[in-house]
Amino acid sequence: MAKSKFEYVKHFEQHQTLLRNTWIVVRIDGHGFHRFSAEHDFAKPNDIRALHLANEAARGVMLELNDIVFAYGESDEFSFVLKRDSTLFKRREAKIISTVASLFTAHYVVNWGKFMDGTAMKYPPSFDARAVCYPTNENLRDYISWRQADCHINNLYNTTFWALVLDTTATPPTTTTRAQEILKDTTSATKNELLFTKFNINYNMLPEIFRKGSILYRTREKVAVKEAQDGSSVEREKSLVHVGHFDVIGDEWWVNGSGASILR
Amino acid sequence: MAKSKFEYVKHFEQHQTLLRNTWIVVRIDGHGFHRFSAEHDFAKPNDIRALHLANEAARGVMLELNDIVFAYGESDEFSFVLKRDSTLFKRREAKIISTVASLFTAHYVVNWGKFMDGTAMKYPPSFDARAVCYPTNENLRDYISWRQADCHINNLYNTTFWALVLDTTATPPTTTTRAQEILKDTTSATKNELLFTKFNINYNMLPEIFRKGSILYRTREKVAVKEAQDGSSVEREKSLVHVGHFDVIGDEWWVNGSGASILR
Amino acid sequence: MAKSKFEYVKHFEQHQTLLRNTWIVVRIDGHGFHRFSAEHDFAKPNDIRALHLANEAARGVMLELNDIVFAYGESDEFSFVLKRDSTLFKRREAKIISTVASLFTAHYVVNWGKFMDGTAMKYPPSFDARAVCYPTNENLRDYISWRQADCHINNLYNTTFWALVLDTTATPPTTTTRAQEILKDTTSATKNELLFTKFNINYNMLPEIFRKGSILYRTREKVAVKEAQDGSSVEREKSLVHVGHFDVIGDEWWVNGSGASILR
Amino acid sequence: MAKSKFEYVKHFEQHQTLLRNTWIVVRIDGHGFHRFSAEHDFAKPNDIRALHLANEAARGVMLELNDIVFAYGESDEFSFVLKRDSTLFKRREAKIISTVASLFTAHYVVNWGKFMDGTAMKYPPSFDARAVCYPTNENLRDYISWRQADCHINNLYNTTFWALVLDTTATPPTTTTRAQEILKDTTSATKNELLFTKFNINYNMLPEIFRKGSILYRTREKVAVKEAQDGSSVEREKSLVHVGHFDVIGDEWWVNGSGASILR
Repeated sequence: MAKSKFEYVKHFEQHQTLLRNTWIVVRIDGHGFHRFSAEHDFAKPNDIRALHLANEAARGVMLELNDIVFAYGESDEFSFVLKRDSTLFKRREAKIISTVASLFTAHYVVNWGKFMDGTAMKYPPSFDARAVCYPTNENLRDYISWRQADCHINNLYNTTFWALVLDTTATPPTTTTRAQEILKDTTSATKNELLFTKFNINYNMLPEIFRKGSILYRTREKVAVKEAQDGSSVEREKSLVHVGHFDVIGDEWWVNGSGASILR
Repeated sequence: MAKSKFEYVKHFEQHQTLLRNTWIVVRIDGHGFHRFSAEHDFAKPNDIRALHLANEAARGVMLELNDIVFAYGESDEFSFVLKRDSTLFKRREAKIISTVASLFTAHYVVNWGKFMDGTAMKYPPSFDARAVCYPTNENLRDYISWRQADCHINNLYNTTFWALVLDTTATPPTTTTRAQEILKDTTSATKNELLFTKFNINYNMLPEIFRKGSILYRTREKVAVKEAQDGSSVEREKSLVHVGHFDVIGDEWWVNGSGASILR
Repeated sequence: MAKSKFEYVKHFEQHQTLLRNTWIVVRIDGHGFHRFSAEHDFAKPNDIRALHLANEAARGVMLELNDIVFAYGESDEFSFVLKRDSTLFKRREAKIISTVASLFTAHYVVNWGKFMDGTAMKYPPSFDARAVCYPTNENLRDYISWRQADCHINNLYNTTFWALVLDTTATPPTTTTRAQEILKDTTSATKNELLFTKFNINYNMLPEIFRKGSILYRTREKVAVKEAQDGSSVEREKSLVHVGHFDVIGDEWWVNGSGASILR
Repeated sequence: MAKSKFEYVKHFEQHQTLLRNTWIVVRIDGHGFHRFSAEHDFAKPNDIRALHLANEAARGVMLELNDIVFAYGESDEFSFVLKRDSTLFKRREAKIISTVASLFTAHYVVNWGKFMDGTAMKYPPSFDARAVCYPTNENLRDYISWRQADCHINNLYNTTFWALVLDTTATPPTTTTRAQEILKDTTSATKNELLFTKFNINYNMLPEIFRKGSILYRTREKVAVKEAQDGSSVEREKSLVHVGHFDVIGDEWWVNGSGASILR
């Protein structure tokens, strides 16, 4: 089609590409989710509905972008791992991160009603995204471990914090400021004990989705597919996305579980 | 809070910032909208509902991000201009483009039902985004001119193309391939004439939203605001976002219109 | 020529380009020059020979790279300004900065003997380089002003510092530590006065090359060129590189001097 | 020291860093060496003096920058490999490539007279540099193999080309254009045979420095160092830089040779 004399402005674009043969991790983060979760009355310390909604949104992203081989979610963040030989969008950083942020947002909004039982969306949520490259399997595993350790640390803190604040038997009620003081510089052991002795909560019995976060991964399975012409079925390989809540810091899942096929 | 030994992976992040004192243009583009518009029966050559929906989404982005001083939309794309001294997200490219893509998507999905009268959303749309810096006002105006010229060129072509293809009086009906052949290498004048003589369409009388695209800009207006305490009103300045469909290639709007306050 | 199967590694290159239509400033800096100047007995506070040598090296760079329209040098650093529409090496950052660093180094080493009268070079000097883009004339002028102000501030300090340290009449001699203490937090006025009252030095009478640094710029002049064929002369325009030591913070040179043709 | 109001321009700098935990390869290339080698009468197809000079310059670079663990040179180019955990200049790309280019140039110019026996330097040579990251040992080895394969391919071609052109027995003399025609699309085998039958040259007997290029690597060796105080000697480890000309495409040197300590 005809070109205009203004076309030269196109050449101001500077495309950044992500280094080849590295694991690309795209992490999306809720934008202003402190306020968003407050305005929409998310349960404290964890809103199971919101976690399932985020998982469904992440599943939507994975079903759209086949190069994502693994995803990990906790709180209002989700990390997506692209296989190291991915050539998605020619590894152009801007296209990759904006598409992941957009897809996640779209699925989050579309599925809101299905998961948030009756809570009206007061205003649309949004997510930012960034990409980081990891050159080795060890670096990638350490990244994932970093996020899962972060999930644990935050969740233990938040569980104890909200147990104190929401404790209706306390006179006077524990303020958030007071709860912060109580927990300042405490070890994991102390928080565990406090939960157990004072609130009769055995931390390790809490749902794994809270303590471990959510892992999404694929398997390829044989499925019977109806052929168009004559109605007969043939076997096809199909990629399935699974959601789990288990340890990904230790070697087990990466060596003997489905993780093995990711790092190979 | 406690740090894990995995924390080092954080230092693999490489933050790209956008050059200071330049106009930042973030352009979002519909991802796979050829298929998306077909699956959702968008009217051809233009679907007025979808254009209004996109404008509403863009308005949502501008109301959220105050540094955006101008936006231009056509078809499934929208360009957002941040003021040249913006320090939004410290001008970090990844945060800026992912947030704009996410916000636009969120508002597009949330407002779908309000604009697309009854058309069910079969699957969520998504948008990618890129950022480009323009050092001078002239470069910025040329960028905007480039998009508006593109809008005109595409719209004239599409209007003629679909007039041919949807022409029920033609025997045999004009195929899309045949329509492409007819229009190949034709000038604007030829297309205008063909529209007029054969279809009695005066191109210049078509709605401006189709021919000029959509311009979003702000004005600051005094509004009476009720004070909380005693119910009395005070005057406050408020930023309003307007939508228009007019020429932004010529100087008029930039010199004598609201555009003047943008480039100052 | 034949290609090897290893050729794929080429695609790991990531070319960064410098934004179009901006002033590119390449600043080179002496690497470890504190030690280098000590080992080669540079005079304190300024070694006029070393300054002339650096100017000659910068002139060599400008004669090689025609897109450099201005250069400013002080101490062991030099800034080169490429015209804003330069397409040198397609504005690839790596090529530009490495070539400027290499050319400057080459000319510095080659001309050493000519300027450093008899001082043997104990080991080769080296310089690093960086590129910065400036979108407006004002930003560029402010950059140049920044460096010239820096030259003045450093030179006034160093002149006073070395006057104290090299003062053979002081008993006991002023140590460098003591000199630092004396000058800590002093204003320009105080240093000027100290120089005048104690050492009878009128700072403003010191050579301009010390106080203002060195400015390199081009003029185009008509020169008579002998034609190869018949020995007759024709007039040709030729680019000449000049070295001056004058104020470039004020408007004078930029408006009425040779600087006017740079910013036009 | 006092700061000027112009200081803000500093914040326009955009520092690009090279991804952590990857091999950084800095390749320098002669700038305009076709002309430079012609003007300085470099022998064809290879000038042994110029190769030794380049090797000496590379050695100078390695002695200055301890993080360089390997270098490979051929013709007018040299590749330097930094260890993957290097934090040299905080991995800032601009500092790394400009410093390597500058150091190489300095040592090349300084050592010119020692190697180029009496050939006067007509004008200073210069070199550009680029950096590329390689995430795995395999990628790094393939990079090195790529350069050594390139050396072989070019050398075989050039040897045959110059044998034809410099052949004084040919009537009429073979022009460079004619030589290009003769060699167009020929295989290695054909060139080898032509060399042997026509010029009695056994390609495989040519010096390895021409056929394999130059490899520079370090070993750490115990050396007796005189202590300052009492003149007694102690054993210290010292890094030595070696130059060799051998195969680095095969595994031998990397597995059983000094290369093993690089990749570990």
